[in-house]
Amino acid sequence: MKIIIVGGVAGGMSAATRLRRLDETAEIIVFERGHYVSFANCGLPYFVGGVIRNRGDLLLQTPQSLGARFSLDVRVDTEVVQIDRAAQTVSVRDMLTGEENTEHYDRLVLAAGASARSGAVSDTTIPTHTLRTVDDVDHITAVLAESGAASAVVIGGGFIGLEAVENLVHRGVHVTLVQRGPQIFTPLDPEMAAPVLDRVRERGVDVRLNTTVTGHSGQSVTLSDGTTVPADLVIDASGVRPDVTLAEQAGLRIGESGGVWVDGTQATSDPLIFAVGDGVEKTDAVDGSGTLVTMAGLANRHGRSVADSIAGTAEQAAPALGTGILGIFGLTVALVGWNEKRLVDAGRAHRIAHTHPANHAGYFPGAEGMSIKLLIDAESDAILGAQIVGGAGVDKRIDVLAVAMAAGLGASALTRLELAYAPQYASAKDPINQLGYVADNLAQGTSVNLQWHELDAARAAGSVLVDVRSAGEFAAGSIPGALNVSLDELRARLADLPRAPLIVHCQVGQRGHTAARILTQHGFDVQNLDGGYRTWLAGTSSLVVSPIAERVLV
Amino acid sequence: MKIIIVGGVAGGMSAATRLRRLDETAEIIVFERGHYVSFANCGLPYFVGGVIRNRGDLLLQTPQSLGARFSLDVRVDTEVVQIDRAAQTVSVRDMLTGEENTEHYDRLVLAAGASARSGAVSDTTIPTHTLRTVDDVDHITAVLAESGAASAVVIGGGFIGLEAVENLVHRGVHVTLVQRGPQIFTPLDPEMAAPVLDRVRERGVDVRLNTTVTGHSGQSVTLSDGTTVPADLVIDASGVRPDVTLAEQAGLRIGESGGVWVDGTQATSDPLIFAVGDGVEKTDAVDGSGTLVTMAGLANRHGRSVADSIAGTAEQAAPALGTGILGIFGLTVALVGWNEKRLVDAGRAHRIAHTHPANHAGYFPGAEGMSIKLLIDAESDAILGAQIVGGAGVDKRIDVLAVAMAAGLGASALTRLELAYAPQYASAKDPINQLGYVADNLAQGTSVNLQWHELDAARAAGSVLVDVRSAGEFAAGSIPGALNVSLDELRARLADLPRAPLIVHCQVGQRGHTAARILTQHGFDVQNLDGGYRTWLAGTSSLVVSPIAERVLV
Repeated sequence: MKIIIVGGVAGGMSAATRLRRLDETAEIIVFERGHYVSFANCGLPYFVGGVIRNRGDLLLQTPQSLGARFSLDVRVDTEVVQIDRAAQTVSVRDMLTGEENTEHYDRLVLAAGASARSGAVSDTTIPTHTLRTVDDVDHITAVLAESGAASAVVIGGGFIGLEAVENLVHRGVHVTLVQRGPQIFTPLDPEMAAPVLDRVRERGVDVRLNTTVTGHSGQSVTLSDGTTVPADLVIDASGVRPDVTLAEQAGLRIGESGGVWVDGTQATSDPLIFAVGDGVEKTDAVDGSGTLVTMAGLANRHGRSVADSIAGTAEQAAPALGTGILGIFGLTVALVGWNEKRLVDAGRAHRIAHTHPANHAGYFPGAEGMSIKLLIDAESDAILGAQIVGGAGVDKRIDVLAVAMAAGLGASALTRLELAYAPQYASAKDPINQLGYVADNLAQGTSVNLQWHELDAARAAGSVLVDVRSAGEFAAGSIPGALNVSLDELRARLADLPRAPLIVHCQVGQRGHTAARILTQHGFDVQNLDGGYRTWLAGTSSLVVSPIAERVLV
Repeated sequence: MKIIIVGGVAGGMSAATRLRRLDETAEIIVFERGHYVSFANCGLPYFVGGVIRNRGDLLLQTPQSLGARFSLDVRVDTEVVQIDRAAQTVSVRDMLTGEENTEHYDRLVLAAGASARSGAVSDTTIPTHTLRTVDDVDHITAVLAESGAASAVVIGGGFIGLEAVENLVHRGVHVTLVQRGPQIFTPLDPEMAAPVLDRVRERGVDVRLNTTVTGHSGQSVTLSDGTTVPADLVIDASGVRPDVTLAEQAGLRIGESGGVWVDGTQATSDPLIFAVGDGVEKTDAVDGSGTLVTMAGLANRHGRSVADSIAGTAEQAAPALGTGILGIFGLTVALVGWNEKRLVDAGRAHRIAHTHPANHAGYFPGAEGMSIKLLIDAESDAILGAQIVGGAGVDKRIDVLAVAMAAGLGASALTRLELAYAPQYASAKDPINQLGYVADNLAQGTSVNLQWHELDAARAAGSVLVDVRSAGEFAAGSIPGALNVSLDELRARLADLPRAPLIVHCQVGQRGHTAARILTQHGFDVQNLDGGYRTWLAGTSSLVVSPIAERVLV
């Protein structure tokens, strides 16, 4: 059997090596239009920043090493320009010589990936760089070295944009981050993104929200707000789009999301052609819709599946959760599934829990805090998504939630997980168990909570806000107009409280819950402000910098 | 309703506070025979070591604080000495005055925990200390301070014993670790415990295996091997046993494991009496048998469940996985479920996978290694247990495996988990995904592996061992008598291989797998040595120090 693979990075190369292990006699040719195969895509920003020092460390394999070990015929600088499905051939162009020829295939695997999105900059004469290939990185580091670049503009505060920002700052470059919309890192909800924005600004980055790049003049660019900022270098990290050119030309089905449509075995609408990676549409785990998830983990995983499919041992792909993680100036930002904005847009009934635990026992030195947001299906108690921002231990908790979500555990079942505990690693009630307790209380009706963006409307309708923190905490900063009755005095001061509906809150939500339990049992109508003062503060600060939060106002 | 709780630490106090949140009007009395409630049990060794500096940090709550916030009647220095089930009363003794009185209960919760096991030292005149309460720690730190103790003997290399060893060394004390059996940290299998023993010895600890303490003379103790070692302090960490005195006297059912029997709602054989914590038998997740798991997480979790049960919203407890974690001299050691020894003893058919991944992308600076062992049900592909030893990221992977196990995911399903990836946190194929790939290959028959302790027998029966590492790796250390044919030369050197059954191996198992696939397809009968040279070396080194590994020889 002759198998042709278009694209030699994550998905394509996982398919190629697994295919060889399954079939020693197959002819396997990998065409890669770039000069490198199997390179460390996700390491590129860190090479720009000098965190990864040796360029060779980015190059995990070469055509030679893959030939020796896996008997693969890997041809770099070679572009597949056309597919003839009837003839089962591809037209191939040598990008150095321009020479074209034709190769027959028994099975074809498309792993062309995604391209950095163009069009973010309205003035196309501006020399922007993308950050997606080894060549991109070579160009960027050349500019930085030649000009002794002191300034850069990064367009787009997503995964790649923020990684670029961090690494440029690490190199001593002054960075302006230009964000078209009102929030950076839009996979998060606004109150969860607020500490990320704070951190980025604390590190001296000039963040411009609701702004685009409109012009270019020498070593600076002009922005849509009329200002000019220095820009020895401009990096366009405004997004990627699936590279479906070949598939489209060949008449393969394209999914609703814009990626190549595949079934659960990675087969396209032509059963002899498979597709994998960032260019392919995935099935969303929450609603089953077609979705784009451009993560290396899925590309590798599905690449292996393609090989199994071709070898005749196909299995159905798991739906995509969209698990992602970002390190940014010492913060870890992680997420899985849907966020609140998307649930609101889709009209999906949900519950929300915010917590602010430490990564391990507070009495053990070095505990670091994190903020967790959990989105829960109001009907089924299913976990619909989660967001975590904080220090050490964030990566662990998002993985635990991703597994729970994939396994179909309900949010209340998080209480029952038996996670590893010693005081330097976790708490006897792990943050995940605590999150489960909150979710379980919501599911049982033991607790009724209110979101930070629902507070103003509730108070306007007559609810009274009671802050149950200590007098000292209250004095250090409080929600305007709140009545302060500390939890430990609450039973003695019931007579001081009005018989209106009450909203209680503490710093993070836990004392608020106890207060709500006490008050409910004394006949009060009580809601607990979810995530307490800390979530309210983050949420309202996001309103100050941008109006995005209004989207989730009920 | 009047509820009496016996024991005011993890399980008892979780029950008490949750009960109050559910029932503002109940009368709740907590009796604690010690002087402290709700203290940081798992932090005690770290206070001995000076890692936790402030003794007050160990005392999370006081009777006063619990009274103020939760309206609990907490009575320390008070022992419950008898239960009269017919009268629904307990007899209570004030340990300071000796005064006794009687309290009626509507519901009784036993949370007496476990006691440090006595009897490990045959000569009972030897003044040993246990390490389980705040009083224990006060005694130990007093000895260390008064004598300027330069030497200590720790009996028992389990969780508490090793934590004691680490903390005494941290204080500059010379430590002898006395282990009755041939292996320290017996929850692990021998090849996984080998690096732990190495690390403990590297840090200057004098480890004596197959040894007991037999006598005592001044500031030294004599051992069963006839030697004498200095011992300004002797800590008995040889284990704990459930404290079931009260329950036994009251005629409550005791489980096969020796803990108080409870049903899934934590009710004992008397429906008015509940029990929780280290003194209680749990249901084993692997075989449903009664088991003891003395972990703080379960005590807290089940304490909360007791409150739900009493409040009338009982749910069935999840079976216990026995997830545990230990930090020892910079190594993290974690485990869940059953080990190989136990599976062999029980005659349970199983598969095994050893891997040696890095915690994150190798090209990103600072990657740390770990060794993973996965035990898999041969019939169902269910995960039966796992052990991990290594650096950063071990705690994350054991938690992911614990959740997968609790959720009933098969080992092959680990391939499909969508875990968070960026190069500083994980690999695109996370160690857990990789483990799944190995398990999947075993389940599909794509790979057949052989354990380190099966190697000698297989070679004696005629199998030939082929080391597919590079010549340089081979020269640096190899298994005696192995034939070296590097993977990249394998296809060219097929004619050099004998037509006998082959066992291939590399450093960690991955190249061995590729080699096995090549050779199998060329008609050879091939097995891959699981975990490669590294697991073999660890396993055989454990044989050198002790005969324990013979227990798992097939």
